[in-house]
Amino acid sequence: MKPEEERGVEEGKQKWVYEFSRGTAEGDASMKDILGGKGANLAEMSRIGLPVPPGFTVSSEACRYYFAHEGRKPEDLAVQVEDSLKNLEEACGRVMGDVSCPLLVSVRSGSRVSMPGMMDTVLNLGLNDDSVRGLASDAQDERFAYDSYRRFIQMYGDVVLGVDHASFERLLGQAKSDEGVYLDKELSSEVLKRLVLSYKALVEEKLSRPFPSSPFEQLWGAIEAVFNSWHSPRAKVYRRLNGYSDDWGTAVTVQAMVFGNMGEDCGTGVAFTRDPSTGENRFYGDYLLNAQGEDVVAGIRTPLPLTKASREDLGASGLSLEEELPEVYEDLEGVRRLLEKHYGDMQDIEFTIERGKLYLLQTRSGKRSARAALKIAIDFVGEGIISKEDALMRIDALSLNQILHPVLDEKGEWEVIGRGLPASPGAACGKLVFSADRAEQLASSGDKVILVRPETSPEDVHGMYAAQGIITTRGGRTSHAAVVARGMGRACIVAISDMDVDLERGELRCHGLTLVEGDVITMDGSSGEVMKGEVDLVTPDLSGDFKTIMEWSDGFRKMKVRANAETVLDAKVAVDFGCEGIGLCRTEHMFFEGERIHAMHRMIMSSSVEGRKKALYEIEEMQTRDFEDLFMVMEGRPLTIRLFDPPLHEFLPHTDRDIRKMVEITDRSLEEVKKRVEQLREMNPMLGHRGCRLLVSYPEIIETQARAIFYAMRKVYEGTGGENSPDCEVMIPLVGDKGEFEEVAKVVKRIGDEVMKDLPLEYKVGTMIELPRAALLSDEIGEVAEFFSFGTNDLTQTTYGLSRDDSSSFMGDYERLGLMSQDPFQTIDRKGVGRLMSLAVEGGRKVRPDIKLGICGEHGGDPSSIAFCEEQGLDYVSCSPYRVPVARLAAAQSRIMKLRQLLTSV
Amino acid sequence: MKPEEERGVEEGKQKWVYEFSRGTAEGDASMKDILGGKGANLAEMSRIGLPVPPGFTVSSEACRYYFAHEGRKPEDLAVQVEDSLKNLEEACGRVMGDVSCPLLVSVRSGSRVSMPGMMDTVLNLGLNDDSVRGLASDAQDERFAYDSYRRFIQMYGDVVLGVDHASFERLLGQAKSDEGVYLDKELSSEVLKRLVLSYKALVEEKLSRPFPSSPFEQLWGAIEAVFNSWHSPRAKVYRRLNGYSDDWGTAVTVQAMVFGNMGEDCGTGVAFTRDPSTGENRFYGDYLLNAQGEDVVAGIRTPLPLTKASREDLGASGLSLEEELPEVYEDLEGVRRLLEKHYGDMQDIEFTIERGKLYLLQTRSGKRSARAALKIAIDFVGEGIISKEDALMRIDALSLNQILHPVLDEKGEWEVIGRGLPASPGAACGKLVFSADRAEQLASSGDKVILVRPETSPEDVHGMYAAQGIITTRGGRTSHAAVVARGMGRACIVAISDMDVDLERGELRCHGLTLVEGDVITMDGSSGEVMKGEVDLVTPDLSGDFKTIMEWSDGFRKMKVRANAETVLDAKVAVDFGCEGIGLCRTEHMFFEGERIHAMHRMIMSSSVEGRKKALYEIEEMQTRDFEDLFMVMEGRPLTIRLFDPPLHEFLPHTDRDIRKMVEITDRSLEEVKKRVEQLREMNPMLGHRGCRLLVSYPEIIETQARAIFYAMRKVYEGTGGENSPDCEVMIPLVGDKGEFEEVAKVVKRIGDEVMKDLPLEYKVGTMIELPRAALLSDEIGEVAEFFSFGTNDLTQTTYGLSRDDSSSFMGDYERLGLMSQDPFQTIDRKGVGRLMSLAVEGGRKVRPDIKLGICGEHGGDPSSIAFCEEQGLDYVSCSPYRVPVARLAAAQSRIMKLRQLLTSV
Repeated sequence: MKPEEERGVEEGKQKWVYEFSRGTAEGDASMKDILGGKGANLAEMSRIGLPVPPGFTVSSEACRYYFAHEGRKPEDLAVQVEDSLKNLEEACGRVMGDVSCPLLVSVRSGSRVSMPGMMDTVLNLGLNDDSVRGLASDAQDERFAYDSYRRFIQMYGDVVLGVDHASFERLLGQAKSDEGVYLDKELSSEVLKRLVLSYKALVEEKLSRPFPSSPFEQLWGAIEAVFNSWHSPRAKVYRRLNGYSDDWGTAVTVQAMVFGNMGEDCGTGVAFTRDPSTGENRFYGDYLLNAQGEDVVAGIRTPLPLTKASREDLGASGLSLEEELPEVYEDLEGVRRLLEKHYGDMQDIEFTIERGKLYLLQTRSGKRSARAALKIAIDFVGEGIISKEDALMRIDALSLNQILHPVLDEKGEWEVIGRGLPASPGAACGKLVFSADRAEQLASSGDKVILVRPETSPEDVHGMYAAQGIITTRGGRTSHAAVVARGMGRACIVAISDMDVDLERGELRCHGLTLVEGDVITMDGSSGEVMKGEVDLVTPDLSGDFKTIMEWSDGFRKMKVRANAETVLDAKVAVDFGCEGIGLCRTEHMFFEGERIHAMHRMIMSSSVEGRKKALYEIEEMQTRDFEDLFMVMEGRPLTIRLFDPPLHEFLPHTDRDIRKMVEITDRSLEEVKKRVEQLREMNPMLGHRGCRLLVSYPEIIETQARAIFYAMRKVYEGTGGENSPDCEVMIPLVGDKGEFEEVAKVVKRIGDEVMKDLPLEYKVGTMIELPRAALLSDEIGEVAEFFSFGTNDLTQTTYGLSRDDSSSFMGDYERLGLMSQDPFQTIDRKGVGRLMSLAVEGGRKVRPDIKLGICGEHGGDPSSIAFCEEQGLDYVSCSPYRVPVARLAAAQSRIMKLRQLLTSV
Repeated sequence: MKPEEERGVEEGKQKWVYEFSRGTAEGDASMKDILGGKGANLAEMSRIGLPVPPGFTVSSEACRYYFAHEGRKPEDLAVQVEDSLKNLEEACGRVMGDVSCPLLVSVRSGSRVSMPGMMDTVLNLGLNDDSVRGLASDAQDERFAYDSYRRFIQMYGDVVLGVDHASFERLLGQAKSDEGVYLDKELSSEVLKRLVLSYKALVEEKLSRPFPSSPFEQLWGAIEAVFNSWHSPRAKVYRRLNGYSDDWGTAVTVQAMVFGNMGEDCGTGVAFTRDPSTGENRFYGDYLLNAQGEDVVAGIRTPLPLTKASREDLGASGLSLEEELPEVYEDLEGVRRLLEKHYGDMQDIEFTIERGKLYLLQTRSGKRSARAALKIAIDFVGEGIISKEDALMRIDALSLNQILHPVLDEKGEWEVIGRGLPASPGAACGKLVFSADRAEQLASSGDKVILVRPETSPEDVHGMYAAQGIITTRGGRTSHAAVVARGMGRACIVAISDMDVDLERGELRCHGLTLVEGDVITMDGSSGEVMKGEVDLVTPDLSGDFKTIMEWSDGFRKMKVRANAETVLDAKVAVDFGCEGIGLCRTEHMFFEGERIHAMHRMIMSSSVEGRKKALYEIEEMQTRDFEDLFMVMEGRPLTIRLFDPPLHEFLPHTDRDIRKMVEITDRSLEEVKKRVEQLREMNPMLGHRGCRLLVSYPEIIETQARAIFYAMRKVYEGTGGENSPDCEVMIPLVGDKGEFEEVAKVVKRIGDEVMKDLPLEYKVGTMIELPRAALLSDEIGEVAEFFSFGTNDLTQTTYGLSRDDSSSFMGDYERLGLMSQDPFQTIDRKGVGRLMSLAVEGGRKVRPDIKLGICGEHGGDPSSIAFCEEQGLDYVSCSPYRVPVARLAAAQSRIMKLRQLLTSV
């Protein structure tokens, strides 16, 4: 069909109403935008001959017209609805409002995406004092008919006419107390008839006009109520939160009623076409005999399984549908096979059985566990239903996280003692410690530990590394703790505001409980929950389906996937997960460990270039070995080494004890050390003396690092007999100007050329693009930089003028008000940050067509951001080691999407 | 002439050499780009018939060719130079190298802008063993000729051949000691002849080839040396620092020598065509009889005044040129009148008199004092030489600063005790104080005070206001102290690193001196100097010429000029200086004063909306009065009020004493107060919970401010009988997204509509554009914001990712390396920040063609930035009150430039 813009929402020639009836339909599944998800799928099922109660859908275009014309409906909408209603009466052999053979309908809202906040369903529309009698004779049950009538008035009165729900409930309660009964169903048909009268009187009193008895008036009221529910406060907030447009409008589906509660040959049920938890190819669902849809959900009666096999597995009392109504079951099995084949996906369906006849009321893609998603996708390919591309597109890339990390064993039991923001996935269990040093001590003696802090700083990194998981009471999902933990693949929970860490006493207090060092706790970084004691964990299995999907992904994707890693362990994890290089090795992490921080302190305290060089020389040797090890692990894959980035004060001690230690090590007076600490203090460290600015001030740091890099390359090359030529990309951080880059790059190149002049090794020198100015001046910077790597963490901070460390204080307010539909630190903000990226890609390519482009911010592991990178034509994404599989799949999906868009646009 | 790109720098058809001779020239003054400033003006003077020694200029295009072709000169350059040389010989009636009538030339470098670091002049080129005899007979002085020859070899040997200057000096010293004399001029011509021989031997020894005796070889050597001097390290650094292109290249001017030292009818001098210090229309200059140019500068002999009147004024001994050589003086007077008329500006000239004949060697625009610049410009218009536009374009807008502030009385004497960065202009004198409170106390009892602090914070603002001037030992030119002082028009000096402020002892130590509270000091915020004791000051006079120039400016400019002001005093100053509105009223400054800070503390400590409202109510009444007063001062001019901007922690106390005070005032426990202080602490306050983010969290602040604004408008309107309708623009800070803006604007509008519904008053609600994201999303934000005001301070910080508070730690390194050619916090960075501004202007106008656009960052007072604003078509600039006159002139200049560009492009 044409896009809606082309068809034009104009009065006169416009089609507003789309009918469906078994075997024929004016709409189809592709028309979700104008028929809503439900309406489009009802049309599709009718079209392919499935038993769907007939009906019609008023398009969302009518709704848009309605809002664009101050609540006036399109003129010819009335005619079209009347026509469709006549056709519906004919198809059903029933007439609206008829005293003997009445047509009753349901009216439902439906937008292009599932959306809470809009009008609920109105059932049994068409009932009045005449047609209720027809319903009674149809059902051969007067009580049933009048109870339906009462419910209809209540529902219609509430959602369409705006009469307070509680007023009806008061009358109902009154009736029960008058009768001396407790349950609705104990009311007799006589009482119900009186209740209908008092309900109608209530409505008339409230609205000063009678309850509409004309089915047509009822119908128009319901349609308008659905339209207006599009702008209900709840729906608006939901749209704002999800970034959905207010302009979409809602469709209205009017469908003939079928009843699952007219006797023992009736029933209703819901089913998944496969097992949504394991993905096994077996019919999975529940049903209830003689019941309505809401009874299955309400849980008053226990639903029974569909198949005999399940019933036996579960040991359920009562027969399965397969045994109870074998013919209906047979029909349902047919529907199942047809739907899967037709939609090419596992479906979640609703059905009703009226007098031994099966009706489908809804179908949609079924939600499933990550593991099931893999199995189903692979099985569908095996069964020849879908292609590999389709299989990959079916899987939520992020859900792979569920498979990659340990999870709580569902069979276990636990007591939750705190709840915070899930900041890095995976479950972990260990002894509680309050300091990084203790974490390291205990871990080195073989204990598993969980590090709990108010917040973490770079000084805690060694302890975070030693721990199984990290918990902080402050900070947000992009705080230091969260970022570092995700990078390391450690479980992490942040912002547990109801926990109190008392570092002085060494106590963790929560909910009246006091824990001390050594107490065992368990944490789930995926849910944000902290548990007391040890909970059993299930560790991941990465063979089988997972492996298959990864292989397929690699076959489709064009972008390379690299990892952000600086330790041998992380690099190995990343290689095991299939990374094709390291996109970000943060060398400063290497300056914190053990003796090195002492050398750093001596460097910082030195007032002469020579003194600094001497201190740096100590680090140089160690760093050379670090790089050697990394080059060995990478076996010829590219290794992107970012030169020293943080401000110097990050290396300085905060506590008196540490300051005294620094005095001792640097051989300076306490006053000198304190003065230097004060001197290096910054108002806004994020915007301060760091990155290439620091390198410009202290070129001896560049020299040290460049020598370490190039000597390591030399050694690895010579040591391996040239078999795995080390491949290195030297990256300069925080560049905002061509001159800065050149100033640093010339030192790197001088040393590179010196150290490796006789070897056949090459290297590139490039830059991070992490400041708006770098993006805006990319055409100048691209003249000298051989690659760009988007540092989207900092780029997001500067573009928004928003410190991720400080944003937690008001992000809650923003989310509540719907002002921040997605976390820009998680998913690239396309309009702002993304636009700068586009400018940079364009500028860089203009001056250097073969410039290598990548991303190394956290966004490199986010599927939606990866799609953006594919759109921009980046060469690679780089993410934390545990995100590599997610990125491999997401890169394949992005590629498939891009190619499909190309195809449709041709 | 055509732009050089079009003419093409190609070999073969290219003209490389431009001749000039009295009455004719191939070049003119507009050709500075290819002839250099000196060459172009020599051509121009020749062209208009002034007595210029003939010569020719090798264009900078030849130099560019030379560098583009690895040091190869254009093939036909040799022919063109030879031809021109022949013409020159003809014009002079002399021949290069001739034994009886030799032509001698000078060779000079010359770029389009005056630039140190390139080759100095080579004089007397053409001397060899033959021509020296010709010179001797010409001058009738053999000693003179051989001394010239010796000097030529030394100069040429040094700058062209690269023979160490000291080696020549050693030989000269040797000769003097052999002769037993002390002065060069005591050497006889015989000794000088021998010295020439040993100089030549020295050159031959060093270079293994003889000193070139061929004048042509000498000439080519000099031309190439000039070319190569373009890339001397000093020239390169200078270009980087000034943002000049390495591609320009230098021209080489070859000119016949004239001698001012051939007898008593010879001489040399320099002159300004008017008095450069007062601007008075009188010939102002010095001369020396029988001397060379360098003698005037060297200061060995005292030069004499040009005119009889000056001689009498000065009581100089010796005759003026007017008396000594009346005919030559008459010629010079003619030259003076002609040059002024021709160039339309006051000129700075150099001349030589050879045997009673006047020669002009250079002319250029003369530097002058700010006061003189005004007078000269106005006089030139009065004399009918230039138009008013030209007059305005002649004046350096920034120089007006010199007139607007008190200056040190030059007649006084002083002792400088410290030197820092000049941060806010003007001289001030007063008693030394170390705290804001003491500043206020002493000032209120009538004392003038100078506040000295390590650095200032918002808590010091009342003291800064009370002081005459502020000195900080830390911080940069854009630190808090500097920004606030400039805003208030207070003198300010920052970063005096050799001063030590000891707050505990109440001492200021510098250079062994210890000052205490009450000691009088004087400071000059224009030079950065601090003086001991009281120095007399001269206060400004703003009538007369200043007033005329302002009136003319207002006649030409299109952009309005507003001021950044929040106090009645500042607003009055701004109105007196001619501002047309307030572009930025920072309301939070009103929250610091006196009792208000206590209400703020109660607000911050309150955990309920109601509690906060109660505390804010106290402020509301006071703020209403503030706004009333401002509206009254503005008399109907627009007042742009920015809603509350800073993070809350800026209001919190730092010292124990102040924290205890806060405990008392808020009736909370010390622990609670400390906890709240800790809670509000931010890692990067610049990027934290401030601006509209804070307003979204605490809408009660918006309500308070909106009520204060609108009730003030109401009262002023009613109080003045509607005569001066208050005009208000409410500005929302730190917006990065449309939704944020709407959230805050809806509260403002609700209250505005409530309070003023029955009045014929209007107001606008708009936003600051101070984040890259706001600029990038300007088309969305422009849909809801009625005006944009560029907050270029913050926009620069975020675009560069550079905190101005922290940049001083490395800016020194950047300046040293030429990596920061201009301070982006002073002048808009066009490539980065400017590009974002262009995007925002475009986006805003797209969705709202009549959107009002202004700038309120500090750049609003910077002429180069004002020119950029005019290019972008902004409606107004807003700057600190003392910058208003600068902005009025700069806006007129920008407009004139824009119109002229339009004219030339048609």
